[in-house]
Amino acid sequence: MKGYVFHGPGQSAWEDVPDPAIKEATDAIVRVDAVTICGTDLHILKGDVPEVRPGTVLGHEAVGEIVDVGADVRTVRPGDRVLVSCITACGRCRYCREGMYGQCRGGGGWILGHLIDGTQAEYVRVPYADLSVHPLPSALDSKDAVLLADIFPTGYEVGVLNGHVRPGDTVAVVGGGPIGLAAIATAMLFAPERIVAVDLAAARLEAAKRLGADAVADAREAPEQLVSDLTDGLGADVVVEAVGVPETFELCTRMVRPGGHVANVGVHGKPATLHLEDLWIKNITITTGLVDTYSTPTLLRMAAAGRLPTGQLVTHTLPLAHMEEAYDVFGRAGDTGALKVVLGGEQHQEVVPVEAA
Amino acid sequence: MKGYVFHGPGQSAWEDVPDPAIKEATDAIVRVDAVTICGTDLHILKGDVPEVRPGTVLGHEAVGEIVDVGADVRTVRPGDRVLVSCITACGRCRYCREGMYGQCRGGGGWILGHLIDGTQAEYVRVPYADLSVHPLPSALDSKDAVLLADIFPTGYEVGVLNGHVRPGDTVAVVGGGPIGLAAIATAMLFAPERIVAVDLAAARLEAAKRLGADAVADAREAPEQLVSDLTDGLGADVVVEAVGVPETFELCTRMVRPGGHVANVGVHGKPATLHLEDLWIKNITITTGLVDTYSTPTLLRMAAAGRLPTGQLVTHTLPLAHMEEAYDVFGRAGDTGALKVVLGGEQHQEVVPVEAA
Amino acid sequence: MKGYVFHGPGQSAWEDVPDPAIKEATDAIVRVDAVTICGTDLHILKGDVPEVRPGTVLGHEAVGEIVDVGADVRTVRPGDRVLVSCITACGRCRYCREGMYGQCRGGGGWILGHLIDGTQAEYVRVPYADLSVHPLPSALDSKDAVLLADIFPTGYEVGVLNGHVRPGDTVAVVGGGPIGLAAIATAMLFAPERIVAVDLAAARLEAAKRLGADAVADAREAPEQLVSDLTDGLGADVVVEAVGVPETFELCTRMVRPGGHVANVGVHGKPATLHLEDLWIKNITITTGLVDTYSTPTLLRMAAAGRLPTGQLVTHTLPLAHMEEAYDVFGRAGDTGALKVVLGGEQHQEVVPVEAA
Amino acid sequence: MKGYVFHGPGQSAWEDVPDPAIKEATDAIVRVDAVTICGTDLHILKGDVPEVRPGTVLGHEAVGEIVDVGADVRTVRPGDRVLVSCITACGRCRYCREGMYGQCRGGGGWILGHLIDGTQAEYVRVPYADLSVHPLPSALDSKDAVLLADIFPTGYEVGVLNGHVRPGDTVAVVGGGPIGLAAIATAMLFAPERIVAVDLAAARLEAAKRLGADAVADAREAPEQLVSDLTDGLGADVVVEAVGVPETFELCTRMVRPGGHVANVGVHGKPATLHLEDLWIKNITITTGLVDTYSTPTLLRMAAAGRLPTGQLVTHTLPLAHMEEAYDVFGRAGDTGALKVVLGGEQHQEVVPVEAA
Repeated sequence: MKGYVFHGPGQSAWEDVPDPAIKEATDAIVRVDAVTICGTDLHILKGDVPEVRPGTVLGHEAVGEIVDVGADVRTVRPGDRVLVSCITACGRCRYCREGMYGQCRGGGGWILGHLIDGTQAEYVRVPYADLSVHPLPSALDSKDAVLLADIFPTGYEVGVLNGHVRPGDTVAVVGGGPIGLAAIATAMLFAPERIVAVDLAAARLEAAKRLGADAVADAREAPEQLVSDLTDGLGADVVVEAVGVPETFELCTRMVRPGGHVANVGVHGKPATLHLEDLWIKNITITTGLVDTYSTPTLLRMAAAGRLPTGQLVTHTLPLAHMEEAYDVFGRAGDTGALKVVLGGEQHQEVVPVEAA
Repeated sequence: MKGYVFHGPGQSAWEDVPDPAIKEATDAIVRVDAVTICGTDLHILKGDVPEVRPGTVLGHEAVGEIVDVGADVRTVRPGDRVLVSCITACGRCRYCREGMYGQCRGGGGWILGHLIDGTQAEYVRVPYADLSVHPLPSALDSKDAVLLADIFPTGYEVGVLNGHVRPGDTVAVVGGGPIGLAAIATAMLFAPERIVAVDLAAARLEAAKRLGADAVADAREAPEQLVSDLTDGLGADVVVEAVGVPETFELCTRMVRPGGHVANVGVHGKPATLHLEDLWIKNITITTGLVDTYSTPTLLRMAAAGRLPTGQLVTHTLPLAHMEEAYDVFGRAGDTGALKVVLGGEQHQEVVPVEAA
Repeated sequence: MKGYVFHGPGQSAWEDVPDPAIKEATDAIVRVDAVTICGTDLHILKGDVPEVRPGTVLGHEAVGEIVDVGADVRTVRPGDRVLVSCITACGRCRYCREGMYGQCRGGGGWILGHLIDGTQAEYVRVPYADLSVHPLPSALDSKDAVLLADIFPTGYEVGVLNGHVRPGDTVAVVGGGPIGLAAIATAMLFAPERIVAVDLAAARLEAAKRLGADAVADAREAPEQLVSDLTDGLGADVVVEAVGVPETFELCTRMVRPGGHVANVGVHGKPATLHLEDLWIKNITITTGLVDTYSTPTLLRMAAAGRLPTGQLVTHTLPLAHMEEAYDVFGRAGDTGALKVVLGGEQHQEVVPVEAA
Repeated sequence: MKGYVFHGPGQSAWEDVPDPAIKEATDAIVRVDAVTICGTDLHILKGDVPEVRPGTVLGHEAVGEIVDVGADVRTVRPGDRVLVSCITACGRCRYCREGMYGQCRGGGGWILGHLIDGTQAEYVRVPYADLSVHPLPSALDSKDAVLLADIFPTGYEVGVLNGHVRPGDTVAVVGGGPIGLAAIATAMLFAPERIVAVDLAAARLEAAKRLGADAVADAREAPEQLVSDLTDGLGADVVVEAVGVPETFELCTRMVRPGGHVANVGVHGKPATLHLEDLWIKNITITTGLVDTYSTPTLLRMAAAGRLPTGQLVTHTLPLAHMEEAYDVFGRAGDTGALKVVLGGEQHQEVVPVEAA
């Protein structure tokens, strides 16, 4: 089969690789229908994630069809259309028992396209299939569903739920990339009074507005002042960090009101400064986290009912075999305006921008 | 009357000051029976808290008797024996309505001995008396009760409750001063599997053991290794920071397990480094906070029932008029072994160390 | 002034009564602009609420303007436009400190139009004004705002929040009167997957649909079967009882899934049968409650932002002086289709049905 | 092997049955070391649980050694000493994913000694072993550990945690049988201000006192008055029903304070009357539930650390082969004073009462 293989920093290709096969009784093999590229994949290509060994097929998000299962798989069978979660769960360890699958100690967690071959291929082996794939409602297009493999549960769990968004809140989301936009879209599920989106790129702020943001701010133009003005000087109830650099994290801690929450979603490579000399007295809560995907079944029901605007995050669609082109489009997002680039799916198309709804 | 007056950095005296009088219909005047000194008072004396104006009577912890009340005070009357809370609450603002009295926007919060004259005096005016003093159960000695004015609710609310201590947890408390010890004593209310106390001073670690710590570690001797060994390499469920310097905060973030809580209680004067490059993926929760004292009625009932070891934190008792000596004893805690120094109380005594129970 | 006075079962009139005046320093006098009638008022008229003494002015919902305040009122002043909450809160007792104002032990709770003169008059005295009236955003019409005095916080707090409605839930609301409809409207704030409304009256089921119900069932036609079919036999996540008779409560306990919530909002006059022989094993939670109105500030912000469809519940508007006619329209809701009848407000109108939005 | 077989109402015997063997790859076979008898077993013998087919080996609590495992069992292996939980969990269904194992839809839940052969035998087959047995700390005696198979997690989860017991609470426990006593013992983990135990039998009230109850009341002598007197007329914060008859449930709803919790643990065979005409206004929460055993790992750690008084509930110990005698002793608890009767364990003894510690 074909797969997108990492060969070390700066080197990768869509090339022939062996077909995956069942190795454990809890495995499933999935024929990939739709797949997408994550910002993390770009970090891997740059060499920022050293535990990814050369020769690994990348990708941790997919929709496809089960073609084979191990003897102990009970909840899916060949022919089932499924979502492949970015998180694999052994279901037996302490963390899995608490629904904290991202912290799995039994061989799961984020392993696809990281510690084992991933989803950017024609077929993928998924360990612990019972807890790591989700049957798809027939109403849901592959191209919509694939956004539930990672970014929607990430924005929802790590941003919105960790941040305890409540009806009537003022929510600030710093970072208008796919994860930030997913946080905005899922914050809308809790009827906040207003959402303020912060980014450097006008196009992303426009996307934020379409998804529900009421106010937007250029990150260079005192976004904390806007939040302060909107809240009588108090600050935001919830601030979601969806960038992953020290400056944006520190901005978040300046925008939060006393008693509020800062939910960090961004993937950080460097330490940040925590201004405890100001914050010790303010009753704030800061959370971090890798997605656990415990919310995926709920999000799938919501998406099938038409209540999640997943499609609005897809800017480009291409055939699966155009993986290298897709990486190019996604890697030059500043030029191409790419948010999520979906490969495959039921309606394969040439590379054309999708019009915003 | 006499009061302990701040006259600017390094200058203070127990001296004559005017008697306080009712200024607002919601005020009460309390004749002080027992009072104690807080680490914050030492910071004020050093000049670290610039909003304290010269001429202010210090102190925010007291037990005493109501001698006068304004026309609108309804829950206490002259003759009542009360605890004066370190936090004053208007009861009307958004934060007070949510029980977050420390963040009061209506003129309350921490004001005694800070923005207005405090409790280290023969009499004190307490604004918003209905929500800011608590009638005392007769079973409770003044010397025990005065510890509920600040350090017990602080350790309990900001350390134990913010940290979500649960039965069976491993709890690490960094800092064995009065607040850290109060956190240990109140963590015991939730039946943790074990408490690990960390400090530099052997005497404080001994006090921690008497209050319930199962293991103690010298802060210079790799306390995170001890926690790791006790938890199969996982880390503590809850870590309480009760020192207030960057190094101890950073130690706390190294001792917490994935999915665990770091509850900051320490008063910080400088920023700390938050190692988001390690922590972003670990599902941790960090909380900060000034005490709100919403738990004070509960703690008073517990103490009256003999279920809080308040007395064990009192190392020295002196008459009220020995305030300057008391500051000297408390200020040289490294030499004197002082934890809490109580002035006044029902049994006035000469300055002698209290034997540990 | 004029007021609507209860003179014993079956006897009441819009008649001259003395103007109210400040009695306590915490009182406010409000000139009533808009007022409405609650189902409870009909119960009082029938004699079902014996603690209401003849001579009492009825009504516990109003919008108006402050015309006088006692010396200790700090948060409002004459000229302010306010919402008069159905619940009065002393702000000092144990329950008020926990935000459970409906259980106030300090002379508050539901007292207006119950234990003291109420709002169905030209003026009303409101005790404990600081916590019992809410300044109104200027964007909010009186006729919309008055629905936030009781039914919206009741549906939200006692139905939706007590029931723990979450995104993706199936919510069943039994009873399509004003409170049930307010529960539906506020359940929508949490993006449930679906809401099923149950009532006997087709007109009320239509109103339920307009407010967001996805499915409706006639109470005589096996509504539990519909819920079962929609949920693969599992039952509803949350069931709200908004009628107040044993049969509907028992229906609710048959419609809830294992692990689900039954939130009772209905005012009951008789005991119900609790089928513990079925329910003991099902991990269900049943809640009851009088509204506390802690959510009123949040709901006011939401309404001002246009995010609560308050107006859709108003079927009739009349001038304040038409109180007796309004009671007639509201008392014959089966014939008139009345949901909420609003008297006064900025646009006084003759009695005409309001077209549904 | 020998097992205790149900042959229909009133008929049962310790007799030869076939040895169990692995049937599914997720099974384990456990050689039983210690086992106990539950009140539910007596109900089965009386014919109250019709889904138990004649020929079934009874029992759902055991400690033993793994002697065989299926190919897919990963967390235990032959030779491991384990606790067999009363609840079996597939780990894959919606309810297992949420930790609500008692509601398992994948073939688990309460099945041992109910739908399949149970633990009152020399060997038992345990399905879904990875989530249904727990490795035992070596510090824990079998006779102590076996109490964690059912009654301790039941009292803790369904009584104490569902009831939200908090430090400082007044907790009333109605029913002083093994489950009620386990609720008392585990309520102590949250440092309540006081526990009031209610029963008809003086011996059980004595046992309640030894486990931590501060006050006891004969169920015939107005226990609600005692609770009222102890709480200034307010009622208990938490009331645990541990009997299972309508009268005791209704008593619980009279003893709870406004805003309090009634946690039903009792197994009911008949409906109770819910006095909604009194309760609708009181903000109370009623919970029901079968144990899920999600707390078992925590309780095992607590017991190994000597922090659970499991041994105090064991009144009689006998060799495993004395099963019929054990049923007789347990079945005549009114005469024999039996609380828990343990068979087997490391120190086999003749039938002698254990002295209370």
